[in-house]
Amino acid sequence: MTELIGRAAADAARPGTRVTATRPSWGVDSAEGFYDSFISAASMLDLLTSWNEPFDGVVMAGFGEHGREGARQLLDVPVVDITEAAAMFAASVGHLYGVVTTTASSVQQIRQSLGNAGLLGRCAGVRATQLRVLDLHLDLDRTVDAFVAETEILMEAGADTLVLGCAGMAGLQQSLEQKLGIPVVDGVAAGVSLCESLIHQNLRTSKIGTYAPPDLAKKRPGWPRHGRASQHGQKEHESA
Amino acid sequence: MTELIGRAAADAARPGTRVTATRPSWGVDSAEGFYDSFISAASMLDLLTSWNEPFDGVVMAGFGEHGREGARQLLDVPVVDITEAAAMFAASVGHLYGVVTTTASSVQQIRQSLGNAGLLGRCAGVRATQLRVLDLHLDLDRTVDAFVAETEILMEAGADTLVLGCAGMAGLQQSLEQKLGIPVVDGVAAGVSLCESLIHQNLRTSKIGTYAPPDLAKKRPGWPRHGRASQHGQKEHESA
Amino acid sequence: MTELIGRAAADAARPGTRVTATRPSWGVDSAEGFYDSFISAASMLDLLTSWNEPFDGVVMAGFGEHGREGARQLLDVPVVDITEAAAMFAASVGHLYGVVTTTASSVQQIRQSLGNAGLLGRCAGVRATQLRVLDLHLDLDRTVDAFVAETEILMEAGADTLVLGCAGMAGLQQSLEQKLGIPVVDGVAAGVSLCESLIHQNLRTSKIGTYAPPDLAKKRPGWPRHGRASQHGQKEHESA
Amino acid sequence: MTELIGRAAADAARPGTRVTATRPSWGVDSAEGFYDSFISAASMLDLLTSWNEPFDGVVMAGFGEHGREGARQLLDVPVVDITEAAAMFAASVGHLYGVVTTTASSVQQIRQSLGNAGLLGRCAGVRATQLRVLDLHLDLDRTVDAFVAETEILMEAGADTLVLGCAGMAGLQQSLEQKLGIPVVDGVAAGVSLCESLIHQNLRTSKIGTYAPPDLAKKRPGWPRHGRASQHGQKEHESA
Amino acid sequence: MTELIGRAAADAARPGTRVTATRPSWGVDSAEGFYDSFISAASMLDLLTSWNEPFDGVVMAGFGEHGREGARQLLDVPVVDITEAAAMFAASVGHLYGVVTTTASSVQQIRQSLGNAGLLGRCAGVRATQLRVLDLHLDLDRTVDAFVAETEILMEAGADTLVLGCAGMAGLQQSLEQKLGIPVVDGVAAGVSLCESLIHQNLRTSKIGTYAPPDLAKKRPGWPRHGRASQHGQKEHESA
Amino acid sequence: MTELIGRAAADAARPGTRVTATRPSWGVDSAEGFYDSFISAASMLDLLTSWNEPFDGVVMAGFGEHGREGARQLLDVPVVDITEAAAMFAASVGHLYGVVTTTASSVQQIRQSLGNAGLLGRCAGVRATQLRVLDLHLDLDRTVDAFVAETEILMEAGADTLVLGCAGMAGLQQSLEQKLGIPVVDGVAAGVSLCESLIHQNLRTSKIGTYAPPDLAKKRPGWPRHGRASQHGQKEHESA
Repeated sequence: MTELIGRAAADAARPGTRVTATRPSWGVDSAEGFYDSFISAASMLDLLTSWNEPFDGVVMAGFGEHGREGARQLLDVPVVDITEAAAMFAASVGHLYGVVTTTASSVQQIRQSLGNAGLLGRCAGVRATQLRVLDLHLDLDRTVDAFVAETEILMEAGADTLVLGCAGMAGLQQSLEQKLGIPVVDGVAAGVSLCESLIHQNLRTSKIGTYAPPDLAKKRPGWPRHGRASQHGQKEHESA
Repeated sequence: MTELIGRAAADAARPGTRVTATRPSWGVDSAEGFYDSFISAASMLDLLTSWNEPFDGVVMAGFGEHGREGARQLLDVPVVDITEAAAMFAASVGHLYGVVTTTASSVQQIRQSLGNAGLLGRCAGVRATQLRVLDLHLDLDRTVDAFVAETEILMEAGADTLVLGCAGMAGLQQSLEQKLGIPVVDGVAAGVSLCESLIHQNLRTSKIGTYAPPDLAKKRPGWPRHGRASQHGQKEHESA
Repeated sequence: MTELIGRAAADAARPGTRVTATRPSWGVDSAEGFYDSFISAASMLDLLTSWNEPFDGVVMAGFGEHGREGARQLLDVPVVDITEAAAMFAASVGHLYGVVTTTASSVQQIRQSLGNAGLLGRCAGVRATQLRVLDLHLDLDRTVDAFVAETEILMEAGADTLVLGCAGMAGLQQSLEQKLGIPVVDGVAAGVSLCESLIHQNLRTSKIGTYAPPDLAKKRPGWPRHGRASQHGQKEHESA
Repeated sequence: MTELIGRAAADAARPGTRVTATRPSWGVDSAEGFYDSFISAASMLDLLTSWNEPFDGVVMAGFGEHGREGARQLLDVPVVDITEAAAMFAASVGHLYGVVTTTASSVQQIRQSLGNAGLLGRCAGVRATQLRVLDLHLDLDRTVDAFVAETEILMEAGADTLVLGCAGMAGLQQSLEQKLGIPVVDGVAAGVSLCESLIHQNLRTSKIGTYAPPDLAKKRPGWPRHGRASQHGQKEHESA
Repeated sequence: MTELIGRAAADAARPGTRVTATRPSWGVDSAEGFYDSFISAASMLDLLTSWNEPFDGVVMAGFGEHGREGARQLLDVPVVDITEAAAMFAASVGHLYGVVTTTASSVQQIRQSLGNAGLLGRCAGVRATQLRVLDLHLDLDRTVDAFVAETEILMEAGADTLVLGCAGMAGLQQSLEQKLGIPVVDGVAAGVSLCESLIHQNLRTSKIGTYAPPDLAKKRPGWPRHGRASQHGQKEHESA
Repeated sequence: MTELIGRAAADAARPGTRVTATRPSWGVDSAEGFYDSFISAASMLDLLTSWNEPFDGVVMAGFGEHGREGARQLLDVPVVDITEAAAMFAASVGHLYGVVTTTASSVQQIRQSLGNAGLLGRCAGVRATQLRVLDLHLDLDRTVDAFVAETEILMEAGADTLVLGCAGMAGLQQSLEQKLGIPVVDGVAAGVSLCESLIHQNLRTSKIGTYAPPDLAKKRPGWPRHGRASQHGQKEHESA
């Protein structure tokens, strides 16, 4: 999955952008629901805290997953969450977007993530196909059919744009656009593109208030697990 | 701090309730802001996943901290978050409650936690004293004065009830009530009491939809760190 | 109905709690819709104003009914509304609760009551069985079937927990839980338990701002109807 | 006060409209806060239920007071609440209106009334002068000064229009407009005018769902106190 | 269409009110969707800026159309938008109103107009018949049937009152009321009546803040197209 | 001003992007408040309807101005509003953004624009310097000081990021960032960058529902003023 997302990110990137796809060394293989997502948030923060290579920005490639505000505290380079990026891009090409995701346990988690980002106002609904993340690529026709069926219900409710509610689906974007006749937004591509834009404009994460740096000198038993990074760097990077 | 919270919880508990105060073996000593809170959520879930003793309910004693929805997925006994419990009790004895917390980096985190709980509608505001969690007990007079000053600003904005926006402050509740002339709600006491009530009524966490159990059989590298618990149990328990 | 509610309250209470179930001497036998509810609010306030026995707290046992803020003005002991208590307990064991009530004329009244309490954010919907309050116990199977049917519609909309939207249904809670497979919250039990908790924690109603005591010395023609109470008292009490 | 309001209503009415100002025979002389308002709602509904003269519409002349939805259930002629009428008229001549009322205990009650009416979106704030209803006319200069002072604070917050947050102030409208330089809306005048408009257009209250008639044949101990009205009638009417 | 609306306005007006129905000399014949509505807003403002006859108030007779805040900046007589007037009158006779309009492209535009007016809180939904404005009068039976069908769906969702979501339908109001059994509000009649009420009460548009007059002396290439009006006047007027 | 904005847009653009800055031939020189904004919306739509050169996307460079939904109906290339783009970019690098604009008459217009875009949830406030658009560049020190003063008030209210609430201020971005110590987002740069991203990803505007193309064949008196464009084209374009 990490490799797949990395390829999609590289395809979406502009010439000159170097994408490093990586994943935490511990935690969950795929995040479905709140329990998985909280574990994933900590292991992702562990990875970022320990990272020693230079980079210019981070794209968090877990749709609806926790941790973005923590990463923004830690870093001063831009941190882009694909959930936010996808919703922003969808609201730029449509009036109301729908989200189709994998399992039912993710629906309220995605709504909460969009709500916390302040992006629920243009959302027509979030629906689940009941396919699991790791099964999405077993039978592509079945996957496409399941996404089409749920999207049509959201279109009845007013959606004119589809957001793919999980990473690693970039390959299906084109056939969904053809079957549905509406724009389909892939979070990984949107995230890479938004991250490039923020870097190009020299925008860096605010360091006052909510995103003031955490006190890493505070006594923290067993954290981070991999040793602390000495500095941060110069090129764009994406965590899966 | 864990010991202090444990004593407050035991004091708040009814006769017959046995309280076990415990804390994760890794992570952060005190959680101030999003970064700390996400780490704390995962280490708390690690503790709960590995716990081998029987218990009847869990009180999460980190004000405004993440993880409650993950713990509710994992367990079928009641999981009470002191943030929710305090806001609920405050809304039962006052019309608009104010929250006073420690550092400014926690303010938006607490607002987000209350918002996700659907409890922001009765909140008159959240303010920070700029005292750090571990400094609260260094100079009690200064701590009380700082809380009084911020509460008075919230009372100007309509608050008629105070919620203590961090754990481990039960000892100050009485002098704050006397100085302010309004009810003061301590999250740990509220949480223990709400947890006892849910257990007394045989209410257990819903196991469909959002809180459907996570798939612990799924391949999870290095999780949990302490081995997996074989079963859950019979008596109330509180994590710090 | 009052007797039935009193029994349910006593069953829900802890040992040592004495429950007195009572009802106003004038007004409505059952409250269905806004008109009934406003009459019921005044007759309940009349009863409380005239009450001469000591008590430690009040549970208002009319689901979605008016009057709670008036009772909180009048008294300094805790006043618990079963509408609020049920929604709070439901939000502690589920992510989204649904409410099933009796007649259609109560649906918007219940939504308004939950909205005014700031508790609508976790509500998946309110639906009516079209059974009248006084008919609920004529044919228990029909009543259970009607509640199951409406709850299933709410579960489609995301509800994972059921709140019984009227008092006097505690007897049906268990069979509904078995048929539906989700937690079922009875307002009377939740209200008694929340009231006990507030008393146990020595929390009293705020007496500034919104709940500042009414001026009972003000010239009031024909109020209260039953003479004015001389003082308030020491033990818990519930009005039907 | 009833006479004063009746005169203001007659002044606001068009030629041909006959205004009858009346007040319930029991309850409160003036309503300040929730407790008074709930009593007033029931005594007003008692009056309407027992009324034997024909009338074409009702104007409820208690600012922020309860009962409107109950009166709409009871009657099929238009029922206008001066709270709603004032907010609607203010939103027609200004972008954001402020409300200035008498005592602090009414502030949240007025906000709740506007919120339940769905009219809070254009409200810049509600503030109290701390003058009591029955003292408003003791010293008119002091009253005007107090209203000007609170309005100026609301104008800082964006208000460009003032709503008088209590009945019986029509006489002060003109001097407030001159001192403030913004439109000043009196609820009684707005209410009479809106009621005339609804009658002129043959609009009557909906009788399905929320406003379906209450079951007056249901056993109701001691209600109404004054005997039941046999029918409703033909001319406009206003309750104080 | 302008003639039809003018007749409906004159029918709705009180004796003594003179209605002048007029339409801009350029722009769109009928406004369906955002593009048309923005053109219509400017041409309507052009007309008002160039108008040389005296008038006492303006009724903007385009349902859901833009421009009202601009007209309120320009004028100090009352400016009534039929969208706002219809929603206000509907909320006075029903608890939740539904809107039925013509084409699907207007649905979100109407929702946005109601939302900007702060009047969405009592709206049960907005639905489209898919009839075009200029086709409404081709086959009255088909038009009535289409409105009945969409209204019944809104009644399922809680609506107890219908707002006609376009101008020029006053003729159908009565047959819709008979078929549906609920109040039906026509925006033109509501707008005329509300405008008469504001004039009768001497309420004029606020001239501070948002509605401060535009700087017409500022260099404006080619605006207005018809020359600038020298003054404003004394009698009511309605633009189609 | 158009030239200035064009230069800023070109500076923000990536190599290979050709920016054409243009402005409507009629309407307003600068838009301050609703009246100006509605005129500007129509003249901008006139320009777009009549445009005969190929282009790949449009950036609307009027902060808080109307028309974006109309342009999205007309075109299938991406239409970016700098209001939306600035708010999205600000929410990616800060937790709460503040907006500082020119005149007070624009404040509510900007709030409405952000609200309609669904982007108000992360906004800490909108404030005006009371400098007029065309005076911003007369005395740069005074302009910077005025923006700093208003931003500091917003930072008190929680803002950690500044959005420049008008176009043509890109030159001041750097000195504001240095004085304030927080990220400063310029709408023109954000808009160009977002537009480039949407084009790079082959995202085009949805053509169903709200943004279904307007019926340009419909009889439209005097529209567009400059003749109709025959087709749309291939390169990016920005209207001032």
